[in-house]
Formats: sequence, structure tokens, C-alpha cells
Amino acid sequence: MFDNKNTRTELSSLGEFGLIKHLTEHITIHNESTIKGVGDDAAVIDIGNGKVQLISTDMLAEGIHFDLTYVPLKHLGYKAISTNVSDICAMNGTAKQVTVSMAVSNRFSVEALEELYSGMMLACNRYKVDLVGGDTTSSLAGLVISIAVLGEANKEDVVYRNGAQEKDLLCVTGDLGAAYMGLQILEREKSIFKENPNLQPDLEGNDYILERQLKPEARIDIIPILAEKGIKPTSMIDISDGLASEILHLTTQSNVGCALYEEKIPLDSMTINRANEFRLDPAICALSGGEDYELLFTIPQSDYEKVKGHPDFTVIGHMTDKNSGCNMITRSGSSVTLTAQGWDAFLKK
Amino acid sequence: MFDNKNTRTELSSLGEFGLIKHLTEHITIHNESTIKGVGDDAAVIDIGNGKVQLISTDMLAEGIHFDLTYVPLKHLGYKAISTNVSDICAMNGTAKQVTVSMAVSNRFSVEALEELYSGMMLACNRYKVDLVGGDTTSSLAGLVISIAVLGEANKEDVVYRNGAQEKDLLCVTGDLGAAYMGLQILEREKSIFKENPNLQPDLEGNDYILERQLKPEARIDIIPILAEKGIKPTSMIDISDGLASEILHLTTQSNVGCALYEEKIPLDSMTINRANEFRLDPAICALSGGEDYELLFTIPQSDYEKVKGHPDFTVIGHMTDKNSGCNMITRSGSSVTLTAQGWDAFLKK
Repeated sequence: MFDNKNTRTELSSLGEFGLIKHLTEHITIHNESTIKGVGDDAAVIDIGNGKVQLISTDMLAEGIHFDLTYVPLKHLGYKAISTNVSDICAMNGTAKQVTVSMAVSNRFSVEALEELYSGMMLACNRYKVDLVGGDTTSSLAGLVISIAVLGEANKEDVVYRNGAQEKDLLCVTGDLGAAYMGLQILEREKSIFKENPNLQPDLEGNDYILERQLKPEARIDIIPILAEKGIKPTSMIDISDGLASEILHLTTQSNVGCALYEEKIPLDSMTINRANEFRLDPAICALSGGEDYELLFTIPQSDYEKVKGHPDFTVIGHMTDKNSGCNMITRSGSSVTLTAQGWDAFLKK
Repeated sequence: MFDNKNTRTELSSLGEFGLIKHLTEHITIHNESTIKGVGDDAAVIDIGNGKVQLISTDMLAEGIHFDLTYVPLKHLGYKAISTNVSDICAMNGTAKQVTVSMAVSNRFSVEALEELYSGMMLACNRYKVDLVGGDTTSSLAGLVISIAVLGEANKEDVVYRNGAQEKDLLCVTGDLGAAYMGLQILEREKSIFKENPNLQPDLEGNDYILERQLKPEARIDIIPILAEKGIKPTSMIDISDGLASEILHLTTQSNVGCALYEEKIPLDSMTINRANEFRLDPAICALSGGEDYELLFTIPQSDYEKVKGHPDFTVIGHMTDKNSGCNMITRSGSSVTLTAQGWDAFLKK
């Protein structure tokens, strides 16, 4: 099945997406009910009567995805659920059930896990999702959380990553880059605390961007809005790794190019102000920061009137022919090639 | 939701089952489609038309559930899938899809993960299960594997843990204790190797029990046999933690007692011989060893003729009234109370 048994290839040489692609390319599908396997925000399973079940899973490892020196366990629990629910939203579906598995070292107390669980249940209640199972076991080091989420959709409503067409409009919900700036604030306060443990963290005036980092919401509100407006996106993905990386997923899988307009990228004023203080380009925070959990989708030009002026939607570009590549037209009018600089667990440490 | 925030309770004080019970007792169910949540081998979700979807999940942590000094990665991959498929069998269902998530340290190479995946795919092909998704990320230490399995069943065919009635017959498939004896062989050879790395491991003549430990099979063959014979068990569970522990799950959830006959416990001759060599009681290996992944189930007495003499089934006891407790009638005719001494990730390290 695989070759080259006598060599040693480092995981970092492939990166997260390359590794998943490499490991899963030999998969055989046995069941007709499996409509879509690996390669989208969720797998799609035919359950008959025009309905499908969606399933997605995420794994969070301490020291890689979260830092418990500044992430409260209750927030971590909330975020673990909302980011999984977001994957179901990205398929234009409704999340219904989750399972929660944890490997946890004896450094953690029962009370610590209660905090984690209370955050998870807060999110489950907010999203009307049922926690139906899981597994809890010990680990030799740290905390690893694995969540699987099940969702429902009508078969004809499911939106994949691969349906974008040339000239389709590229739209995004909410604003971007805030979660990344929230992380910068937390990291700054952590390094100050390390140098002088007597100083209290200075988090004031950063509520919005801190909440975007620590307690992001899944955009479950967008799914009924799209339905009401009679919009079925031609492609959709949620923004977990950064706008650039997600655009490249859509264009690669849809076999199109893209023109993104820098000036159209929605940014909150707090994100812009803090980015300026940190001498960061706010657009780069949006492109490469990730963890915004907004929805990025494409619609036919004929649907433009339906999204125009809506407070939840911003048109940020359009799809082009594949040969034009993926480009961002900057504020100064020049065109730069989009590259994915987003989160990769095997590259960033 | 939880009290006692100012105390520190160790995880080991509750144990695995106690911890899960404690953390999940405040769960609210929001969706009518959720028929059964936490507390059985799989959750049960109504998908309409008399059908249900089953979902179960298991987490395996290096150093807790497996020891890579003697477990080949390919076998580990196979076992990770088959043990999950076994959970769907225990609901009288058919496994259809799995998702595979891994947190993996940079100690592992791409080739190592290829080995792990090739074992998983071997099992997926054997069980006609589709690998439809997952997540692969780095970890700071070791390997953690989390698998979710989806299965199908007719709603009326699903067998829960809580349906056993007084006087029902207690049945088990296959033979027990072999996986535990296989583990003893592997642990013995590991300690010999540690003392003298020049000695080659002596595994000869132990094929059956080693295979039971390293590459157990899910009893997917049993589900159609039960259907053909017109048997719907009143309760069922798979044997992952040891016969005693699983019997206690059935009796507790069904609110009955049990009489188990020691002499009826099915044991392979190799299991008996190796147990004798290790000065272990073979029945104790079956009761407390675990990892046999056989099915334990109860049937009405009226179904006795249907299982009698069948090579896959052994009647090992019967259910009693709750006040009689759970007892094993030994070969000498005395009665001893059954206690769960099986696997608990938080107690055994």
C-alpha cells in the first residue's frame, strides 16, 4: 500500500494537510451510504428519505492547540464544542449530537474536569446539541480532547468545498483576525508574567478580541438566514486556519482561481487598533491568523442582491478561471499571490 | 452544576466508570432523535423509517492502552478499528463508517504512521467499514488515537444493556481469557529482553493467544447468526474489561442478579496451559483479564434450544432476582460474589 519502508520521513516534511492526504489516498469505500468521506468539513452519510447525516471530528492536544497557563478550562470546553459545531455549519447542516473523549494525566483533578465539562455543556445547551457518549482515560502527559459531532441536513442542501464556479462571489460572515489578536494579547501577558510574577495581567479594553480567541461561537445563526434568503452557497468552509488557507481549499477543490480584495476584508476596529500597536498588518492577521470560525462561501452573481447590505455578510472577492491563480488585490492596487500561512500543527510548535 | 470547587479530588478516587458517571449526570438532551445517550456500548440516534444510527468512540493512549515495545503499529491500527466495530456489534448493529483522529509526537515518522494506517485499512476492508474522516495533529508526548464508529440497525433490533430479565440465560460467544494470557507472554518476553537484549523473544507455540491480544476480531459474524435463529437478546455487551465487569454492567443496568457457573466459562486449552504455567487461575483470567471482544448476552429461557450445541455460543449462567446479588458458583460448588477487577485506566498504570 505504501512504499519506502526503509527510509525515515519526518512528519514536518509533509505538514498536516499533506500527511492526511498521504495517509488517506488508499482508502476504499465499501458502503453506498457513504456519499463523502475524507476531504471536507464533515463526512456525509446517506440515511434515506432525502436526509443525510454529517460527521466531523477534531482533536485538541495540550501544548499544541491550547495553553492552560492562560486558557480557563471552562472556556476550553466551550471552544472544543463550538469549533466542532462550526464544521457542521460549514456543510450547511445542523449539529445534533457530540461525543467527547479525553486522555488526561493525573495532574488534573476531578474538579478541573468538572470545569472543562461545564464549559462543554454550556456550549451544548447553547447549540442544542446532545452529549451522547465518549471515553475518558488517563494519559502519561497532559490533556488530549477528541470530539466527534453529528449533524443533519437535507441531502440537496449540503454544501461542499468543491462547487465554486468562475465568477461566483466570495463572501464571509462577521469579521476576521480578532481571535488572532486576542491570542497576541494573551501571549504578551504570559511573557510579562513570566518575567515578573507579581504583575497582574492587563487585559482591559480587549474584551471582544479575547472572547473571539477564548470563547468563539459557531455561526449556527447563518444557516437559517441562508435558507430564508433562498441562498444555497456553491461552496463553503469555516475559517479555522486563516482566510488564505481556507480560500485555497475552496479554489483547489473547486478547480478555480480567486481574486480577493484586501480592502473588503471585514475587520473590527479593536482588531485594527491592537494590530497597529503590535506593528502587525491587520489584513495579515485575517489571512493567516485563523480561529475566527466565521463561514467563507461562494454564491452565484445572481444572488448578489440577497446578500448586499446584510450586516452578517461581506463580499470580499470573486472566483476566476484556474489559470489566473489565487490573488489578493492590495489597497495599493497591486496583485499578490495568496499563500497559506495558516495554522499547521506539524510546522508550528 | 458541580459543587466543591475548593477541594482537589484525585481522578483515581472515582475510577474510570465513576468519573464518567459523575461528569455526565447533568447532561440535558435537546433532540428527540437522541434515543440513547451515555451509558451503553453506543449511543442510538433515530434517523426515521424505523432505522437508527449507532455511534461509539474509544480513545487509546500510548503507555496506558498499548506498549509499542512489543505491539507492532500495524496490529495496533487493526485492533483500534476492530474494538470499535465490536461496540456496534454489542448493540446488535452493523458498523459502516469510522473516523480516525491521532495526536502524534515527532518521534514518529511518516513510515510509522503508514504502518498504523495500513493496519486500520486492513480492518476497515475486513469489516466493510469506510474510513470517512478524522484529524491528525502533533502531540508533545507519544501517540493518542481516538476513533469514532458509526453503525446502522433497525430500531426494533437494537439491544441495550438494560433489558435482562430474571431467569434469562447468560450466554457468551467464543472463549475467554486468551487475550490476557497473550499479554502475559508479551510482558514476560519484554522483561527478559530488558535484562538481556541479546536474547530473542520466545513466542513460539503461542500463536492463538498472541493473536487474541494483538489482533482481536470483532464478532460481526454473530449478528446475522442471531437474526437467522430469530434470537433478539434481552441485553448485550462486548467483553473489553473482563467477564465479571461486563456481567455487572448488565445486571446493574437491568436491575437483576446473576448466577455464573465457573465450570461453564469457555476457555481454550492454550489459555488453560499457559495460565497453569504462570500459576494463574484460568477462570480469573477470563473474569478479570478483558480484551476478549466476545459478546456477552442474555436470552429468554424459551430460546435455549436455539443456542444449545451451537459452536459459537456457551450458556454460562442465568439471571436471578436482584436481591440474590451477582454470584459465581465455583467448581467446588461454593458461591462467591462477583466483583469487577477489570481494566480501569485510572487505577492501573
